[in-house]
Order: sequence, then structure tokens, then C-alpha cells
Amino acid sequence: MNAVGSAVQAVVAAGGDAAARLMERLEARLIELAGGHGALLGRHAGDTIAAGGKRLRPLLLFLAAGAPPPESEALLRSAVAVELVHSATLVHDDVLDGSPLRRGRPTVMAAGGRLAATATGDLLFSRAFAELAATRSVAAVQSLSRASSELATGELMQRADAWRAVPTERYLERCRLKTAVLFRAACELGALEGDDEDRVEGLAAFGEGIGLAFQLLDDVLDVTGPPERTGKPRGADLLDGTVTLPLILARGRDPELAALDLRGVITPEQAAQVSTRIADTGALEDTRARALDLVASAKAELPDLPERQRAALELIADGVVERYS
Amino acid sequence: MNAVGSAVQAVVAAGGDAAARLMERLEARLIELAGGHGALLGRHAGDTIAAGGKRLRPLLLFLAAGAPPPESEALLRSAVAVELVHSATLVHDDVLDGSPLRRGRPTVMAAGGRLAATATGDLLFSRAFAELAATRSVAAVQSLSRASSELATGELMQRADAWRAVPTERYLERCRLKTAVLFRAACELGALEGDDEDRVEGLAAFGEGIGLAFQLLDDVLDVTGPPERTGKPRGADLLDGTVTLPLILARGRDPELAALDLRGVITPEQAAQVSTRIADTGALEDTRARALDLVASAKAELPDLPERQRAALELIADGVVERYS
Repeated sequence: MNAVGSAVQAVVAAGGDAAARLMERLEARLIELAGGHGALLGRHAGDTIAAGGKRLRPLLLFLAAGAPPPESEALLRSAVAVELVHSATLVHDDVLDGSPLRRGRPTVMAAGGRLAATATGDLLFSRAFAELAATRSVAAVQSLSRASSELATGELMQRADAWRAVPTERYLERCRLKTAVLFRAACELGALEGDDEDRVEGLAAFGEGIGLAFQLLDDVLDVTGPPERTGKPRGADLLDGTVTLPLILARGRDPELAALDLRGVITPEQAAQVSTRIADTGALEDTRARALDLVASAKAELPDLPERQRAALELIADGVVERYS
Repeated sequence: MNAVGSAVQAVVAAGGDAAARLMERLEARLIELAGGHGALLGRHAGDTIAAGGKRLRPLLLFLAAGAPPPESEALLRSAVAVELVHSATLVHDDVLDGSPLRRGRPTVMAAGGRLAATATGDLLFSRAFAELAATRSVAAVQSLSRASSELATGELMQRADAWRAVPTERYLERCRLKTAVLFRAACELGALEGDDEDRVEGLAAFGEGIGLAFQLLDDVLDVTGPPERTGKPRGADLLDGTVTLPLILARGRDPELAALDLRGVITPEQAAQVSTRIADTGALEDTRARALDLVASAKAELPDLPERQRAALELIADGVVERYS
């Protein structure tokens, strides 16, 4: 059990039997959905959903609704929807990246080709909105459609910025769009179902803060590796032209890095060398510190909540950090 | 002005000033949406939306709501949503097909690469649901999310069936999924906004019928060409392994076609030869007759409607046929 796994277990424990039961029902529902669209999709979608990680976003959603969360069908469907959108973006990222592996398993791309990956992602997206529509909450549909638009915009921004020397602010906006907005939506959807209307915005801001930290720490991990842990070569971001905060900070400190033409970084060996050079500037510590600040602020600015719910949400925030410690 | 163009004009005339104004507001809104997501997306999405054809689905939606249709913001948003989903599927089809041209213009794929095309399609999808959510109609979101799921399922089915000898029933189900469901949703959304609740199902069935005919006729056109009209080589479906009704029927009549290994059809010249052979069996006339039957049934089974609305919807049905005559 790795750090996130044990943190998830601690959070589920804090959320009580209700949270544990919801997490079980979520898994069952995702498996059912993956299997419910014919044999071909079943395999592709099933693989993606099964490899979908630690269900951090549904967990956040449940606990934004309360600790214990209400065991409603609507809350469950909202969590399913968020996880389906997350899975859809993973599948479509694989189309973009042409990645052969994700979390050590063959991606939909590798298993079924670009064709199946595009359509599978579309199906997962559509199913997400069908789940939300079944909750009959217009506010929920609005929240998730806004997040989905922003996720796609973030992806486009990342491609537009490839290999470019972007300022930190632009990098942070990209992280917000491509990652934090779905954490925000998870909290928002949970709070909406939790009948917590005056806390919706506060919980949403908490989600955005830890989502941003999550992305910063992910970008640190890309530089540190090791590949056995991340499932991709060190400096994979360099190889596809994604300029992240560690590189931005390092370039301010190391003139040779500043002068480097990133398009010349094409082999995993070169990427590993540049990664080491980035690490040597201390940029990773500073990026990590910035992420920890974001998490601390997110926790400090949580709205007034019952103690048990606050403790559970703080555990999730800590889990995001622990993943990378 | 081609056949569909003039049919569209006749329908708009039948729908009166209200329909004409709604069509203009639709264009303005689509252009605004295409431009509202940063320069990069603006270009990609703008190109796709601008090349988006005759706005057949929005027109159907408006007239399913009434003739004249109510000029409500909700009706307009519903039409925008349907056209955005249609555009999203076009963009993603281009990722799949790797098509360099669509309607004679460079596709998003060709202009911006697979990366931009996938994200652009996702953004158009998400924006569609945001538009519908703004109408505050849960029924509308349910209708479009169901249609979107089915469109993606149809795409997956087409890939799964590639190069296979499928029975006619399977072919028809694929046409329903990949094309007719969005015509159905257009009618359903229009009828919902038109306050026509007891006619929703009847109008939806009409949409499905003409959508199915539309796909059958499109499959005939793929065999007949000419490329100057379709913007793709004759027999393009053969080249990507899509087995359509003309081929299914022709194989029942021509033993050499039945024995042909489709995977061996790889050049445009071979595809044109096989197309001629399909045409020689009379399969095109029979496919066209089947499409005309579908249109006639759809018209005959229209629910009880005000005369002007019925006439306008019949004109749309005729327009689908005229496009191919």
C-alpha cells in the first residue's frame, strides 16, 4: 500500500461506514458502466476505469458533502460522473501523447488504437453527463460542464505553450485549468448534494487549492522519477515540450538551462540529464514548498464545518502531499 | 446554391421570420463561442463550426418546437448545443480518419494536429452541455447526453465491424447510433421547448427516421461520388473498412464481390473499381428506395400538428432526399 493508498484508507475511516459503503458502490457502478456498452467498449473502458487510481476525486466529493456523507443515489451519481470525466481525460490524453503505458498497464491507445481511444473517451464524457442529468440537478450539470470546458482549454493551452518560455503565472493558470478545476468541481458537487449551500464556494476553493498543489507536485515527480515509481521516463514533460515550474525556476538560476533549446531534448538520456540539472538548482524544493503553501492555505481557508468533516478533508489534503514525500 | 441549401431556404421561409431570426442568432452565437476560448481554439473551433454545413439539425429543432418557433433563449441554446455536439463529432471523426479535408476545407486535424483536434472536440462537447444546463432543463440534458453516448457507441461499433460481413440489421443499428440519434435529439429538444409534451415522442421518431435515411443516402453517395461533390474519393468507406448497405446488398448478388477480401482494397483506383461493381448490381437503387421509404414513413407517422408546422417538417424531410437526388 503506497502513501496515497494509506491516506485514502485513513480518510475513508474518518468518513465512517457511510464513506466506505459509498466507495464500494462507486466501484460497483463504474464496473457496471464499463461493462454495459458492448464487448469492445467493455474492455477498453474497463481497463481505463480499473486503472483509474485512488478515486481521490470521488472521495473528496463524498466528504465535501459531509462526514459521514449522505448515502444518496444523487451523491453517488455525482461521484461517478466526476470519475468518468477524469477517466475520459486520461483516455484522450493517451490519444494525444501516444503513451504505451499508464500506471504500468497498457493504455486504451496501445490496446485498441487511436480510433477506440477517441470514441471511448467521448462515451465516458457523455455517460458522465447522463449520470448527472439523472440527479435532476441543473447546478450539478453546470458545475461539471464548466469544469470539462476548462479541462479541454487547459489541454489546448498546454499544446499552444509547448517548448515556450512561459511565465509562472501562465503556468499556474494552465495547472488550474488542466487539473484543479476537476478537484474544484468534485467539492462543489459534493457540497451541492450535501445541502451545504452557503459552504459551496468555500469548499470549491479548497478543492481548487489542493488540485493545484497536486499538479505542482506531479510536475516535481516528473523531474525526480524514478521511472519505476512514475511509470514514465524522468523528464517526460521535457520530451513532449511541457514547460513546468521546476524548469521555469531552474532557468532563472542556471544560464545554461536558460539558453537550452528544449526541442533538442529528444532522448530519455538527455531528458534525464536535464532533469538532474534542474534538480541541482534547488528548483524542486522551491516548487514543493509552493505546493505545501497551497495546501496549507487551502486547509486554513476551509469554511466553518463540523469538526469531523474538517478533519477528513484535511486528511485528503495531507494525502495529496504525502503522495510525493 | 445546392439542393440542401435551397431546401433549407424553403424551410426557413415556411418557419417565417421567427425561424429566420433564430437561424441568424444561431450563427452569431456559434461564432461568438468559437472565438471565446483563446486564439488557438478560436481558429480550430471556428474553422470547424464555420464549415459545419447547412445547420440541418438546428433547423429541425426549431421547427419541432413550432412554426413559427418560439424565439426563446432556451430554444436557441438547445440548437447551439446540438450543433456543437455535431461539430465535436466531426472534429473527432477527423482524428480517427486522419482526413486532410472536410467539405473542401482543411480539417482541424490537418491544420492543428491530432492534439488540438482531440481537445477541441472535447471542448465543443463540454460547451454543448454548458449551453443546455443554462436552459435549466434536466430533460434536455438527459436527451443530449443519451444521444452523445449513442453517437460514441456507434463510432465504436463501426470500428469493431470494420472489414466484417455484417448483416443488414447490424448495419441499420449502427446508422441509428452514429447518425439518427442526433436528429432524434434535435426533434426531442425542440418539442420539449415547444411545450409540446404529448408530441415529443412522435417528433423524436420522425427525427430518427429521417436521420436514418440521411445516413443511407450518404452511404450511396460514397459509392457514386463524384469526388468533386463529396470531397472524398469514391469508395472512401471501402478504404477504411466501413461496410455499408450498398455493399451488403451487392454481395448478395455478385459472388465475386462476396468473395472479395476488403482488406485488399487499398488504393483509390481499386475503391473506384469496386464501387462501379457495386453500382452494377442495382444495390444503389435499392438502398435509395429504402431511404425513401424511411422518409415516407417518417412523414406519414408525424403526430397531429398544426398544418404549417407539418408542412415545414415535411420540407426538411424532402430536403434530406433532395440532397442526394
